Amino acid sequence: MTGQQFIAGTCTASSISTFTASNPATTNPIAPAFYEATAHEVDRAMTAAFEAFQLTRTLPPDRIAAFLDAIADEIMALGDALIERATAETGLPNGRFVGERGRTVNQLRLFAEVVREGSWVDARIDTAQPDRAPIPKADIRLMKVALGPVVVFGASNFPLAFSVAGGDTASALAAGCPVVVKAHPAHPGTCELVAEAITRAAERTAMPAGVFSMLHGQGHDVGMALVEHVHTAAVGFTGSLRGGRALFDAANRRRVPIPVFAEMGSTNPVFVLPEALAERSDAMAQGLLQSVTLGVGQFCTNPGLVVGLAGEPFSAFADAVAAHAPGSAPGTMLHEGIRHGYEQAVAHMANTADVVEVGRSATDADPLRTEAGAAFFRTDAQTYAENPHLHDEVFGPASLLVTCDNREAMLDLARNLDGHLTATLHGTPTDLEAHRDLIDILTQKVGRLVINGFPTGVEVCPSMHHGGPYPATTDSRFTSVGTAAIQRFARPICYQNLPDSLLPPALQNANPFGLWRLVNNAMTQAGVGN
Amino acid sequence: MTGQQFIAGTCTASSISTFTASNPATTNPIAPAFYEATAHEVDRAMTAAFEAFQLTRTLPPDRIAAFLDAIADEIMALGDALIERATAETGLPNGRFVGERGRTVNQLRLFAEVVREGSWVDARIDTAQPDRAPIPKADIRLMKVALGPVVVFGASNFPLAFSVAGGDTASALAAGCPVVVKAHPAHPGTCELVAEAITRAAERTAMPAGVFSMLHGQGHDVGMALVEHVHTAAVGFTGSLRGGRALFDAANRRRVPIPVFAEMGSTNPVFVLPEALAERSDAMAQGLLQSVTLGVGQFCTNPGLVVGLAGEPFSAFADAVAAHAPGSAPGTMLHEGIRHGYEQAVAHMANTADVVEVGRSATDADPLRTEAGAAFFRTDAQTYAENPHLHDEVFGPASLLVTCDNREAMLDLARNLDGHLTATLHGTPTDLEAHRDLIDILTQKVGRLVINGFPTGVEVCPSMHHGGPYPATTDSRFTSVGTAAIQRFARPICYQNLPDSLLPPALQNANPFGLWRLVNNAMTQAGVGN
Repeated sequence: MTGQQFIAGTCTASSISTFTASNPATTNPIAPAFYEATAHEVDRAMTAAFEAFQLTRTLPPDRIAAFLDAIADEIMALGDALIERATAETGLPNGRFVGERGRTVNQLRLFAEVVREGSWVDARIDTAQPDRAPIPKADIRLMKVALGPVVVFGASNFPLAFSVAGGDTASALAAGCPVVVKAHPAHPGTCELVAEAITRAAERTAMPAGVFSMLHGQGHDVGMALVEHVHTAAVGFTGSLRGGRALFDAANRRRVPIPVFAEMGSTNPVFVLPEALAERSDAMAQGLLQSVTLGVGQFCTNPGLVVGLAGEPFSAFADAVAAHAPGSAPGTMLHEGIRHGYEQAVAHMANTADVVEVGRSATDADPLRTEAGAAFFRTDAQTYAENPHLHDEVFGPASLLVTCDNREAMLDLARNLDGHLTATLHGTPTDLEAHRDLIDILTQKVGRLVINGFPTGVEVCPSMHHGGPYPATTDSRFTSVGTAAIQRFARPICYQNLPDSLLPPALQNANPFGLWRLVNNAMTQAGVGN
Repeated sequence: MTGQQFIAGTCTASSISTFTASNPATTNPIAPAFYEATAHEVDRAMTAAFEAFQLTRTLPPDRIAAFLDAIADEIMALGDALIERATAETGLPNGRFVGERGRTVNQLRLFAEVVREGSWVDARIDTAQPDRAPIPKADIRLMKVALGPVVVFGASNFPLAFSVAGGDTASALAAGCPVVVKAHPAHPGTCELVAEAITRAAERTAMPAGVFSMLHGQGHDVGMALVEHVHTAAVGFTGSLRGGRALFDAANRRRVPIPVFAEMGSTNPVFVLPEALAERSDAMAQGLLQSVTLGVGQFCTNPGLVVGLAGEPFSAFADAVAAHAPGSAPGTMLHEGIRHGYEQAVAHMANTADVVEVGRSATDADPLRTEAGAAFFRTDAQTYAENPHLHDEVFGPASLLVTCDNREAMLDLARNLDGHLTATLHGTPTDLEAHRDLIDILTQKVGRLVINGFPTGVEVCPSMHHGGPYPATTDSRFTSVGTAAIQRFARPICYQNLPDSLLPPALQNANPFGLWRLVNNAMTQAGVGN
């Protein structure tokens, strides 16, 4: 391991500033030291990306797809070394990383398929009408093309699936955009291994070297320099509201503003409806506990808020949570900053008037192992409404149960929600039918509505939407998970009367790629004039 | 005519501040006085829009379509009164408004068709796989839904097609968003007539009253208050770079940032290639003159820059421009501010060292009729590169001819272009084949590439892209003309395991609207399970 920057296929380190990762389960540092990127290295990476873009944006789809598949292969070829390093840098268990690696490579292969199939470019053709009166209609054709070099910020909580070769990188590369990753300083070694894999894949598939670079940085300077660089065309980020908003603001201050797709998390409210509560409060309590403690609560979709009607069924549900919580073992969090933040947020909640503790892990969390234990609290809708800090995301395995005096109070609570990634309803068919109004309100507040499940576990597929109204994300119109994520990194280009031989293949009469296209307002895979 | 605000179906005026329109062809004021909206009126309009949104966002498509068609009918029913008022307020000829009215109503009817057909919601369905290992796959479905109340700024240069019932309004209403229009103060009477028509259409089709409001304001206060209002979800704007950027910045400063789709114009470079120049320089010169003077040069796609290789053929082309320009009659501009700006920009160009005049209208422009005449200048690529003000849009009938010493210099000029709405190439098939590199560069700089035509005249169809990289627009990913404009005002919502009977019709198994949907990764109009 070098600890260096990966810039367009070569490793460099010109800074005197370094940092080391540490194992949160032991608080021991892990060799080697990592060099922080310099302003000059930022410029080199972005310049190489811009040069590579001149090639990547018009590469045949099978070339891009082969690159994505090769990245997946090279990540698998890293073998146990990757799993071991990720485990050491994060405290998350081995099995978690085997699963996350599977998701990461499946995601890369899925985008390879999206690119090979090709219809994502949304090709539209309106053929000429030379005899139209009063003026002839030109031949007009439209498709989406790559936006330009994309800066991706690795997230701490998914060191593989939302990091160097995660969903942002996969979707940006798929669109034909080079990627420069700002590595997350909490798992720099994991980042280096994956960067090596991508670099090898780029070489093997003869991609221009600048198609991928990765830079290290412990503070904000490297990230800000990347967002402000003239060649940066878009930014992908998953992390905190404060961090995401700072990048968004910087991007909008540029002479040429650029889009920032920041996914900033949320509390993901869960509504438990009366019949379901009466029928299966214990199962729901166990499901909640499992979802809240998954990954030590460090998921964007962690359910931090549970809402129901006050009364005996809800009390039985709370009792079940109280009964199961003590059995939940504390877990090692990603790093000390997150653990400290969690501890403070839980203490703030516990010290709020009219908020009572429902249950906690019976085992003490060991701060020397960077541990956190599950914590459940309970309050009423009025207290929730009057205490804005109770609305903030608590990043970790905590959840707040809120009781409403009546149906209208529950609807009001829903109406006053901020934007979230998800909302969940637990209900029988009768419950759901009786709460069409609640469902309708919630669809305005979130990107995904989950019925009788839990929001953790985000499927990677065409119909997934991992996004939501602000502050869940900076742009509710786009997803960071699923095949539609590619749309973030493309823009339309329209050709008027360009001869067929000069058109990109996706727009040629013969439809050589067999795309679904909108031709004279009809969807078809046929060629034009056939 | 009342001069009042139109708020959710009623006319009100509570301000003491008023302004009047004037006829630019006579500089005479035109009655009546128009009241500026107050902060309270802004709040009333946005609150009514938000209330209406609770209905419009889930209305059946045929209801929305009927409303759009009714607006078109009511605009036609205004008859000559609309044409006369628009002509008086803008100085543009009668025939122009008959044409622009046709485009406006066709646009409304086209969006009615888009809504009736319905596939714009991009429905995606991935059915459940309960037996998948290691974990079952849920049923996941996605579609686009309306974003929320949209604020539309009427543009001065298309008092019908880009104003109160223009493309922004039509596409926002089509998506299910209520619209609050900030009327343009240069044609307030035209705005009032159209607002009346929309109000009647809303009544006739039983839309909630808040679906449409229109407010007057001469300065920036009303517009800013609209952009900053908590219920505003998106903004459509066509106008100057300064105005568009100010709105964009205000929208991004909000606690909850919102998208601003500002189309801010460009110089729309035209490249004239060698063989075409040799074959038809006179026809190209006449075509250029016609495009430059169309609407007295007040089009976003006005070609303000013509680039070619220095030499005899280009000189012959410039001579032809010089020969035809004097015959071009001056025309009345939209208002004195625009005329004054044009006069200053032309003087600045004329006074730039190494910029020479090619030709002008022989007739003097009469400032008392707010007139401007065509003006053509010529310089070389080096002078162009060294004088940033020559790159700025001159809003009016002027164009700058730039000669390049060689092919590489022409490519360099193209590489250094800022973002534009369009670029145009005039060339024979041989020329175009020989300039694939130039075409490739230009596609990175613009939203639409025009071959052997002129950029003025924007077709309204599915494949149109009226947009482009900054500073042509604030967001190169979206168009303000054509059916894809509806995508600006929608966001995805994802349903996981929601029972079929509770899903919106677009996502139900039976596919009651017969939409094109992506079902388990295959495009189909069939129902699920069929």
